[in-house]
Amino acid sequence: MSASPAPQSVPASAAAPGPAAGRREVAAHREAVEDLLRTWFLAHPPAHESIALGEAAGRLLAADVRAPGNLPPFTNSQMDGYAVRTADLAAGSRPDGIPGSVRLAAAAPIPAGSAPPPLLPGTAAPVMTGAMLPEGADAVVPIEACTPDYFVPAGFLPADGTGSTVEVPAETPSGQFVRRAGSDISAGAPALPAGSVLGPLQLGLLAALGLDRVTVRARPRVLLLTTGDEVVEPGRPLGPGQIHDANTTLLRSSLEEAGAQVLRSRILADSPQEFTARLRADIAADAPDLVLSSGGISKGAYEVVRQGLAAADVAFLSVAMQPGGPQGIGTVEGVPFLGFPGNPVSSLVSFEMFLRPALTAVTGAPRPRTEVQARLTAPLGSPAGKHQVRRGRYTAGTVEPVGGPGSHLLHALAASNALIPVPVGTERLEAGAEVTVLLLE
Amino acid sequence: MSASPAPQSVPASAAAPGPAAGRREVAAHREAVEDLLRTWFLAHPPAHESIALGEAAGRLLAADVRAPGNLPPFTNSQMDGYAVRTADLAAGSRPDGIPGSVRLAAAAPIPAGSAPPPLLPGTAAPVMTGAMLPEGADAVVPIEACTPDYFVPAGFLPADGTGSTVEVPAETPSGQFVRRAGSDISAGAPALPAGSVLGPLQLGLLAALGLDRVTVRARPRVLLLTTGDEVVEPGRPLGPGQIHDANTTLLRSSLEEAGAQVLRSRILADSPQEFTARLRADIAADAPDLVLSSGGISKGAYEVVRQGLAAADVAFLSVAMQPGGPQGIGTVEGVPFLGFPGNPVSSLVSFEMFLRPALTAVTGAPRPRTEVQARLTAPLGSPAGKHQVRRGRYTAGTVEPVGGPGSHLLHALAASNALIPVPVGTERLEAGAEVTVLLLE
Repeated sequence: MSASPAPQSVPASAAAPGPAAGRREVAAHREAVEDLLRTWFLAHPPAHESIALGEAAGRLLAADVRAPGNLPPFTNSQMDGYAVRTADLAAGSRPDGIPGSVRLAAAAPIPAGSAPPPLLPGTAAPVMTGAMLPEGADAVVPIEACTPDYFVPAGFLPADGTGSTVEVPAETPSGQFVRRAGSDISAGAPALPAGSVLGPLQLGLLAALGLDRVTVRARPRVLLLTTGDEVVEPGRPLGPGQIHDANTTLLRSSLEEAGAQVLRSRILADSPQEFTARLRADIAADAPDLVLSSGGISKGAYEVVRQGLAAADVAFLSVAMQPGGPQGIGTVEGVPFLGFPGNPVSSLVSFEMFLRPALTAVTGAPRPRTEVQARLTAPLGSPAGKHQVRRGRYTAGTVEPVGGPGSHLLHALAASNALIPVPVGTERLEAGAEVTVLLLE
Repeated sequence: MSASPAPQSVPASAAAPGPAAGRREVAAHREAVEDLLRTWFLAHPPAHESIALGEAAGRLLAADVRAPGNLPPFTNSQMDGYAVRTADLAAGSRPDGIPGSVRLAAAAPIPAGSAPPPLLPGTAAPVMTGAMLPEGADAVVPIEACTPDYFVPAGFLPADGTGSTVEVPAETPSGQFVRRAGSDISAGAPALPAGSVLGPLQLGLLAALGLDRVTVRARPRVLLLTTGDEVVEPGRPLGPGQIHDANTTLLRSSLEEAGAQVLRSRILADSPQEFTARLRADIAADAPDLVLSSGGISKGAYEVVRQGLAAADVAFLSVAMQPGGPQGIGTVEGVPFLGFPGNPVSSLVSFEMFLRPALTAVTGAPRPRTEVQARLTAPLGSPAGKHQVRRGRYTAGTVEPVGGPGSHLLHALAASNALIPVPVGTERLEAGAEVTVLLLE
């Protein structure tokens, strides 16, 4: 533990650039965070990485992908049945309108995965779903529409499968149950646009196109710092006045869920000099896209981040939000910096209200949160001048507040699956009131 | 490639156990899949694994977790301010109702992460958010309510921080801005129930409780097989009549997203003998909880799964769904077996309609799909007797059908984010009709 630094006076009025009231609105701060990241990534676009398809779930496609070949690669049958030449069937049409049929000689069966010989006039070839249509064939008659309506077992035929006949309907349109080569996507056509989130469906298409690797955008690189002399890593014993670090786990897993790569996560003790020196060294070593700290930014006497970055291009301000009011934003060594408050609930709410939406907007991060309308099951009070963010449990159109407003209530947070914002100006919401909640899962 | 096996006759009527019409309803098959897995996991509950917190995102808690200690671990301040003994303040109360105040001697500041000495009567100690309250103190007066309303810089005071005074409001209730030890959760109380999905919020609570490892349920172990002489791994060149394997990628990434572990994924050629021999060997080697195959189960002449498992306890039947009608279900060597059809769209729809809901219901798998109401932007036709499942793009209350009904249309599937079920009996839905769609993300 470092020696305690000198307490520092921070008069309230000097701390808050922004609107006259000294507090920045939630929407304005969200926009500022988005601008900060947008400016950075415009100048420092993510690198491209070629990775195996099996490793690419949740990643973002780096560039447009065009189909390297036709899909399907060859014209094939959509049904189990007989491939026919429809020109052969005209003879079976009856002028009286009664459905006619034609008897054709059965050719050798076409299994999937083989190239069949051309279909001779007057013959029909057994063909299975997905198998290549022989040259000359232009339609498939499903086995159920043929007589006999099953494939004759091999034991009853000569070894080449020929020698029997099959009766098929005369009114079989050309093209019936035929999947043309390239009918799903043709060679050279756009398959997936740059920025696509690669889920099972997109990965399935790339596999079908024969690709076993894919070029994705490098994940945003985040240097994550937790501060505080009182903070101890989970798994280690606590001394007097100490607490275990929840922020590193909360923010690391949230960042990873939103597609970021956490390069380093550290607990830094409360010495501004040490904080600044290590931060500079880590930035030089890791080349992060974002430095995110928690703790040490409000108006107490020991605010290591605020004191350590006093000379940096970072504003420490107050956002009209509760929890999560104190916020730091700016750049350190030219790299985007965000300082979240140290209470775990405050840091998580800051992530969901500011950083996740910015990552989604700027980098196309996967898993954006969704907002839904819900009815409160219990009344909620809120300070008039604050955008209060309460935690709750959403179930089928209703939301039940969980725990109080306290920013240390991690147990209640862990039982929640939604944030309930109560905007500035609303001091009370009754049970049954309709609110817009942010789903956390 | 194996030698082509003999075509086998499979008269349509013999293939479909179940209702009189020969087709099983979608809901009945979903229930059968759930029953199959439930029976297995009741007899073979998942093993417990102790893993690091950083590896546990998305995993399921194996057993109830109780708090090993109080949270917060000690009584601390909710604000930056002065810790006071409210008994000292009574002297400042005024009988005329005008707010009174009391001047107290300033004690040494209490930084976070240290154990302060007891608070002497008549004194007030500067205390920062989260710092331990000294013995004797029973309330915190926020710095903004004090005179002076900032912490006096150390340079202006003796080294021990004493010697100045602070004026605090007399009407300060006992307990104000005090977070009691155990007020979030008390030692021994239930913190998280068995089966909880471990997201950032739950992991944050475990970290705050000092835990760096967590005991989770082993993931369901799935042996994944793709069949077909015509199927080639992505990255390898195609011969005539061959296609690249999309099913392994589609199903593997879907299974992993739903919390399963894919032990082995293999493309097996079209020899029933080889299929059965390798399946038995893999089951013995891998001890899977589920065998999932795609392809080889319908009524063609070359149906390797159906032929290979003819002697096993597996039913091959027809579900009134399109795509995904042919389905295999049963056990092989006592292990649950599901056979999906070979067309990629059919296999994905089978996963979403049958296997994902069963995994959610039986194992508590993360990321269940959600259903939402949406208005169709274009009309849809559907066969009367089938539960047709079309693909579409959901945006803000509307859903646009993407691609036709064809089960080979992977490009359209990859542009979709929703399934649009059109139930049995509905032959046409007009533009503007309200449908219940299954969101795929």
